[in-house]
Amino acid sequence: MEERNFVITGDIVHSKSPGELETLENGCLVCIGGKSAGLFPALPGEYRNLPQKDYGGKLVLPGLSDLHVHAPQFGFRALGMDLELLDWLNKNAFPEEAKFQDCEYAGLSYGMFVEALRRSPSCRAVIFATLHTPATVLLMEKLEEAGLVCFVGKLNMDRNCPPYLREESAAVSLSSTREWLEQSESKLKSANIRPILSPRFIPSCSDELLRGLAGLQKEYGRKRPLPLQSHLSENRQEIEWVKKLCPQSRTYAGAYSDFGLFGEAGPAIMAHCVWPEDEEIELIKKRGVFIAHCPQSNTNLSSGIAPVRRFLEAGLRLGLGTDVAGGVHLSVFRAMSDAIQVSKLRQALLAPEEKALGLEEAFYLGSAGGGAFFEQAGMGRSGSFDAGNDFDALVIDDMNPVSGLASPLHLSLRDRLERLVYLAADGNINAKYVRGLQVL
Amino acid sequence: MEERNFVITGDIVHSKSPGELETLENGCLVCIGGKSAGLFPALPGEYRNLPQKDYGGKLVLPGLSDLHVHAPQFGFRALGMDLELLDWLNKNAFPEEAKFQDCEYAGLSYGMFVEALRRSPSCRAVIFATLHTPATVLLMEKLEEAGLVCFVGKLNMDRNCPPYLREESAAVSLSSTREWLEQSESKLKSANIRPILSPRFIPSCSDELLRGLAGLQKEYGRKRPLPLQSHLSENRQEIEWVKKLCPQSRTYAGAYSDFGLFGEAGPAIMAHCVWPEDEEIELIKKRGVFIAHCPQSNTNLSSGIAPVRRFLEAGLRLGLGTDVAGGVHLSVFRAMSDAIQVSKLRQALLAPEEKALGLEEAFYLGSAGGGAFFEQAGMGRSGSFDAGNDFDALVIDDMNPVSGLASPLHLSLRDRLERLVYLAADGNINAKYVRGLQVL
Repeated sequence: MEERNFVITGDIVHSKSPGELETLENGCLVCIGGKSAGLFPALPGEYRNLPQKDYGGKLVLPGLSDLHVHAPQFGFRALGMDLELLDWLNKNAFPEEAKFQDCEYAGLSYGMFVEALRRSPSCRAVIFATLHTPATVLLMEKLEEAGLVCFVGKLNMDRNCPPYLREESAAVSLSSTREWLEQSESKLKSANIRPILSPRFIPSCSDELLRGLAGLQKEYGRKRPLPLQSHLSENRQEIEWVKKLCPQSRTYAGAYSDFGLFGEAGPAIMAHCVWPEDEEIELIKKRGVFIAHCPQSNTNLSSGIAPVRRFLEAGLRLGLGTDVAGGVHLSVFRAMSDAIQVSKLRQALLAPEEKALGLEEAFYLGSAGGGAFFEQAGMGRSGSFDAGNDFDALVIDDMNPVSGLASPLHLSLRDRLERLVYLAADGNINAKYVRGLQVL
Repeated sequence: MEERNFVITGDIVHSKSPGELETLENGCLVCIGGKSAGLFPALPGEYRNLPQKDYGGKLVLPGLSDLHVHAPQFGFRALGMDLELLDWLNKNAFPEEAKFQDCEYAGLSYGMFVEALRRSPSCRAVIFATLHTPATVLLMEKLEEAGLVCFVGKLNMDRNCPPYLREESAAVSLSSTREWLEQSESKLKSANIRPILSPRFIPSCSDELLRGLAGLQKEYGRKRPLPLQSHLSENRQEIEWVKKLCPQSRTYAGAYSDFGLFGEAGPAIMAHCVWPEDEEIELIKKRGVFIAHCPQSNTNLSSGIAPVRRFLEAGLRLGLGTDVAGGVHLSVFRAMSDAIQVSKLRQALLAPEEKALGLEEAFYLGSAGGGAFFEQAGMGRSGSFDAGNDFDALVIDDMNPVSGLASPLHLSLRDRLERLVYLAADGNINAKYVRGLQVL
């Protein structure tokens, strides 16, 4: 194994807090044992003998985290975008996901997804697979080979979905999940890829299944955290449906909570939260549940615009999700500018008191904000270069004339970051490090 | 001069109408004298001897039209995106535009803009320059050299703008405009680049200047159409301001009309129209004024979402504008997906009765819809391959594995178009023809 001790020089930008960037022109980053030893204007004497990689004039940013993405949907991204959530699931998502019963197809499609993710600005991702155990394990192996840090979920779904993509019963779904958890333990070689429980959403899971998953999370969580991901309050029709399915629960979030799936037995992450009620926001906060804000998907599926300013003011923990294939772009830079843009429309047209996101905030969400989920879930701190964090870094050749970012202006490091965020010029990623290993 | 007679083979897609695509797998397009002779499933015998260019397996689309873009703002695209229109003009646009008094700087910045436009999917553009005559002529020469078809406007602005970017008086502005019109006539070699009168917007132009421009349009329009472009109803503060400046006019559009600048003396194109009143829509229709819909700019500057469905139902003529640098992307593919996306938010959140745009409609707006303005303004029909149109075409290598568009699915031509529109993968433009000449 490589020693993972080295120094990088370049134009460094990362977040100090949601409102504050730290920038360092021609600075040094030190990696020791795969972790950041900090950033320095000049290299401290003690590190003089380390190998140095000179990225002079290039931007060096922390690796980004994609908190919500559906790997099997990558193949049909940017297709059939004229439907709302429930129709979209039936027409686009379910028929494609059913193909992953066939490991050969899964290998082809997941191969494309993993390669695209490797080339993307994300060093970490929280991923939905399908309900199929072999294909899900295959995806995990491919992600491991690519060197990324990911949570991957085999889905649970035993009701309200077509017969060709439905687990026979709660018992079958739970025993497949156990089998998958055991395989994840035995087949993966590194600690980079971990399982995450993934009930699709309440409409797809029977009460018995949801209760069983809470039991599994508790049981497996005794050794090490077993996190859980699902969808929450994405679409108004969906919310009404959940209210009918769970008449005893006060809210959609409350329904997860009533089943013991809302942070009680391990870290939880919920995608969307476009239409939260006040008491859901309180519950999310109380339980330390993460929100994966997916602005492009919420636009593409006509779901709405999540009240991110309210989340930030309430002190919730959140990051960004590309939500491919509700979103079409695998770039978290694009998710950042989408987040800013929809927040502007929300402020201008719906809620003048909810100030639009600024660049600093959007960048924070896509880097340190999302990175914090991995820490909570026992996978190391990431998303900034603070000493002690896992060394996840991107090197981007934004000033190269072929980058498509030509400008006659003198640009500050903040300017250069703003251009990346808006122009999502991912083709210019020069190098990418995950936990101190170069993966691109 | 080349003969501009040839045949192209490839996978052809263009619009028959706003709601209908025509697709032809492995079809033929014939160019005779720079004009389309039509598209054919198999090559008619009479064209057998023409030179053939085989783009088998690649998408062949009509060239797109960008109906609204500010060339001098290209340098600061994707910078300082946290302001609304009037502050944004004062802080970002005016200081940068002032630099174009210096022809050396103009050469550098316009060089970057023209190269980016040449590489973009636009074959045609309607462009704002600055108030400076020499720099504007330089821009026109560079665009001519690049082989594009453009209307370019030297700006008029004699009030409510900073002293460093204001023409001394209406008389000075009008005489500079005459001088620029004469130079456009004498210095340009081809008929590809033509002037367009460009009062910035009502707040920047005195009544005397606006009246004078109406006179110029009438006078010069006797020989051939001299079109006019400006901005209309972009931002709510701006609209209030115009109402104060023109208390005698019923509406913002009415104010242009009261000065004789709303299609009376030649073709007119108005950017934005985010907040139109009913009687403005009627006036726009009556006068055949074109709307340049600029969805991304309207989002970035928190202006709002234009009611495009109402425009279409009213039978207005419209196309898309990137509005760099209110928009940050020079790609009309991106403008198409932006248009679809904001229309979904408008329907979901503001106006349920205004159906969101579909793929066919957005593609139509960016190709034939915008292309129709050039016909109205005497520059030839474009935007589809109908026989008799100018031969403007894009060849896009979307199925190449390096395109970033990998998919395990079998894709129809419509699918492939949808992916281009959403993923705006402009880096894959293989070839571009304008009036039958290859420019890329």
